[in-house]
Amino acid sequence: MTSTRIREARERDCGDILRMIRELAEFEKLSNQVKISEEALRADGFGENPFFHCLVAEVDSGPGEAQGPCVVGYGLYYFIYSTWKGRNIYLEDIYVMPQYRGQGIGTKIIKKVAEVALEKGCSQFRLAVLDWNKTAMDLYKSLGAQDLTEAEGWRSFRFEEEAMKELAGC
Amino acid sequence: MTSTRIREARERDCGDILRMIRELAEFEKLSNQVKISEEALRADGFGENPFFHCLVAEVDSGPGEAQGPCVVGYGLYYFIYSTWKGRNIYLEDIYVMPQYRGQGIGTKIIKKVAEVALEKGCSQFRLAVLDWNKTAMDLYKSLGAQDLTEAEGWRSFRFEEEAMKELAGC
Repeated sequence: MTSTRIREARERDCGDILRMIRELAEFEKLSNQVKISEEALRADGFGENPFFHCLVAEVDSGPGEAQGPCVVGYGLYYFIYSTWKGRNIYLEDIYVMPQYRGQGIGTKIIKKVAEVALEKGCSQFRLAVLDWNKTAMDLYKSLGAQDLTEAEGWRSFRFEEEAMKELAGC
Repeated sequence: MTSTRIREARERDCGDILRMIRELAEFEKLSNQVKISEEALRADGFGENPFFHCLVAEVDSGPGEAQGPCVVGYGLYYFIYSTWKGRNIYLEDIYVMPQYRGQGIGTKIIKKVAEVALEKGCSQFRLAVLDWNKTAMDLYKSLGAQDLTEAEGWRSFRFEEEAMKELAGC
């Protein structure tokens, strides 16, 4: 089994992160929705007041491979605010490249997010998952997460730009 | 019909906001989950780098009433980050006191959130709603929102403190 490190992303990881954002959206069958650029990720995640934080999973190359450490997964999160519990973390994306799955890398990323959340005084962290992604749902549940859509009936709604412009009278 | 203003919340509104957070949780049948205090709201929302922003709906007292303007609704939001579209807004709570419903106050709050989102360069805003709250779902849909749980199958998951501690090995 390859040894894996989970570390904070650096600005120069943005190329890898964008590649994996696209791979994840492809897997989610929603890749037509990806409009982000590497430049936007650099500016938004690595300035003075970053809009998000990112962890990456890095593996060493196997024997005989020359390219050095390789980024094979990521977890992108930011701080949110619950009016019930105060500051919390939202794990927007979690992804491991298919050929590196089944090695516990996703679990390592989630554990690291839990550590960060506790360090920052957060009492919970949230994430969203597609209902046909049973593997992911089973993993999150086995790690102690609750399915709030099932347990309490929460549904996600979104206003897109068109609707917002209509509302704002633009 | 009472005239209503939607304005940014000030620190001194925190008492009213907390009162309405509790009323909303009561309505959602989840009031046992509210742990926040007025002091936490003041510190978290009105410091140098606020964790959230809040709009309040204010009405003037009727003739013969002496108490001046009165806060009867709120919308609490913060900035999130979509790896597809960049910076976005999440409307964590939206609430109008029962006796002031049916006057378009909720719609006014949503319109103001849409204006703020567009001003800040956000291309969408998200919110969550309980599946038995048909009135709210119908309102959001009539204003142009998409139900992503229905359309794409998104489910909300949450790790609570107990699970996080287990994961972090505390």
